[in-house]
Amino acid sequence: MNPTDSLLRLAAVIESRKLANGGNPDTSYVARLLHKGPDAFLKKIGEEATETVMAAKDANHGADPQHLVNEMADLWFHCMVALAHYNLGPTDVIDELARREGLGGLEEKALRKALLREVGED
Amino acid sequence: MNPTDSLLRLAAVIESRKLANGGNPDTSYVARLLHKGPDAFLKKIGEEATETVMAAKDANHGADPQHLVNEMADLWFHCMVALAHYNLGPTDVIDELARREGLGGLEEKALRKALLREVGED
Amino acid sequence: MNPTDSLLRLAAVIESRKLANGGNPDTSYVARLLHKGPDAFLKKIGEEATETVMAAKDANHGADPQHLVNEMADLWFHCMVALAHYNLGPTDVIDELARREGLGGLEEKALRKALLREVGED
Amino acid sequence: MNPTDSLLRLAAVIESRKLANGGNPDTSYVARLLHKGPDAFLKKIGEEATETVMAAKDANHGADPQHLVNEMADLWFHCMVALAHYNLGPTDVIDELARREGLGGLEEKALRKALLREVGED
Repeated sequence: MNPTDSLLRLAAVIESRKLANGGNPDTSYVARLLHKGPDAFLKKIGEEATETVMAAKDANHGADPQHLVNEMADLWFHCMVALAHYNLGPTDVIDELARREGLGGLEEKALRKALLREVGED
Repeated sequence: MNPTDSLLRLAAVIESRKLANGGNPDTSYVARLLHKGPDAFLKKIGEEATETVMAAKDANHGADPQHLVNEMADLWFHCMVALAHYNLGPTDVIDELARREGLGGLEEKALRKALLREVGED
Repeated sequence: MNPTDSLLRLAAVIESRKLANGGNPDTSYVARLLHKGPDAFLKKIGEEATETVMAAKDANHGADPQHLVNEMADLWFHCMVALAHYNLGPTDVIDELARREGLGGLEEKALRKALLREVGED
Repeated sequence: MNPTDSLLRLAAVIESRKLANGGNPDTSYVARLLHKGPDAFLKKIGEEATETVMAAKDANHGADPQHLVNEMADLWFHCMVALAHYNLGPTDVIDELARREGLGGLEEKALRKALLREVGED
């Protein structure tokens, strides 16, 4: 199965866990998160982002990079639960990334902004 | 082009921005981030995760969900820059997600853990 | 001057930077943050928390702990700007901490919760 | 008891929970965090920062600001556990804040930086 299909299939599983689609908070972790509401999965996004950063710092010092992959998978997974709650999906995010990448001069604009920010961070 | 092909194409662009591949920190935002080193893009992961959470809270109160999509695109983009630095890519993360989803009983295990955590959070 | 007097003095300076108290966004950083509104300083809380965590990870590997102190000062400073916006101050936070510390058995309750969470994190 | 004494007393309690000072991970939450090591309390800093931001967003929409105070108390508390681990304390952070506040022209410098960053964020 190619990566696209994996992401879309995961999105479909998450969608099927919505209460309106028969998801059961007593037997499904995703249904439980969706049932508890936004704060439950948003909190996880902040938590998993911090764990991703810590795993990356560890990788700088020789730790297994698979730990970074695991934490980033946790982060993206909870992002996908959030997207489902707002009736969005991973293709919305990926389309936005593709749109930006397709725009000529985008990186130059980002660079100009970054240079200005850096002056402000010195 | 399907979503993950977009992701793979973006990963290839990021890869081409590495200094070893001819990326130029003076003309490319990605080359600049990679050149500045881990703290530069890891910091952005924490920052964009917070902005994602804030955009989601705003969406709860009627703000345009596209703003959430934009912030999550920023978050995933900087995650992909981090992955490139550690010689990893989005397929590593997606394969990990697929592996989990494929494991029978995975959600039940996550649920059991979540229930225990919730008791601890009351 | 003792530490909390320093904190109270800093809180008074922040308070004086509110527009209603004559603060000028063109000449004061704090007035500018308060004028831009919650997202401006809340975003900094997420950003500085990530930088605090990164500085601590660096300290584990021999970096100067003063860097950690600097990042945490940035974090607490932006927390105090947020408190001012909501007409609160550092004594509200410190009183809450004192209240908890004063409660007999509080740590035991936190411990029980933590043990349950840990079972869920294994 | 004045706020200073409250913070210093809390720092002393945390210090007493170090294993070297007789703290017991089986009966004390703080001793347990310190015993588990940096990742345990650093992760909480990221988590509580996110919860602080969410509580502030809720306060914008009429929620009780005491919830924000509670989350910020959690954040500062775990910051103090981190400080203790690195043999630092709240006075180090407060002294750094006081030092900055005492420097003439500090806010102007922060402002100049912020203005530059803002140009980069437009």
